[in-house]
Amino acid sequence: MFCAVVAGAPHDAIYRDDDTVAFLDHAPVLKGHTLVVTAQHFETIEDMPDEAFRSLFATVKRVSIAMGPALGAEGSLVLTNTRISQSVPHVHIHVIPRRQGDKLFSPGRTLWMRQRYADGEAAQIAAKLKAALRD
Amino acid sequence: MFCAVVAGAPHDAIYRDDDTVAFLDHAPVLKGHTLVVTAQHFETIEDMPDEAFRSLFATVKRVSIAMGPALGAEGSLVLTNTRISQSVPHVHIHVIPRRQGDKLFSPGRTLWMRQRYADGEAAQIAAKLKAALRD
Repeated sequence: MFCAVVAGAPHDAIYRDDDTVAFLDHAPVLKGHTLVVTAQHFETIEDMPDEAFRSLFATVKRVSIAMGPALGAEGSLVLTNTRISQSVPHVHIHVIPRRQGDKLFSPGRTLWMRQRYADGEAAQIAAKLKAALRD
Repeated sequence: MFCAVVAGAPHDAIYRDDDTVAFLDHAPVLKGHTLVVTAQHFETIEDMPDEAFRSLFATVKRVSIAMGPALGAEGSLVLTNTRISQSVPHVHIHVIPRRQGDKLFSPGRTLWMRQRYADGEAAQIAAKLKAALRD
């Protein structure tokens, strides 16, 4: 599934370089929730050679920084599941924009409670992130 | 606080190299919950130079792999908070051992519901992880 995205399947793209692709999760934990995937197929971070971590987390860092100006985020949650709770067996790092009071970790909400984008909303958010990443 | 650990303050150490130190969180989300910190002080991953990601996540990877033989883990959750929900302003990556049925993301439990170790339990778990990391 993510190999298809890397190869050009439709997605709300934010950023792409030789080693990584970043795009919006279509069912975000919080709006702006981005996935950063490796262009090369690795199942989990345990399968990655150490030298591949630099480019993967350089993109994670750039996306996290861009969420400030693009979305008014005050921080981020960066997370990856290895095997357990990992829905797609291709390395993907979740980058979730955070704000004070967003209640992401509040009692009564589980982390993976997904939201839905309204029509056109994801494309707008992706465009803002893309612009911030270009700066 | 983590600079003190890097400098040698008491902690349940698991692993140490020139760039990183890994030790048990004393109030684990699940038992075996490990923190991997940078030896150099950076507040968040946004403050790290790209070249520092290789050694940081190489240690995260090694810890995640070691949790299998050491603790019977079937996977891991790797996570870092940037500013929001970040209790200590020094980069630390949470590596949490996962098992099918551990209910980490179940309704009614928030992610940061902390457990306590019995006397000596943390030292035993740290010793197992340390041994697995040496192999």
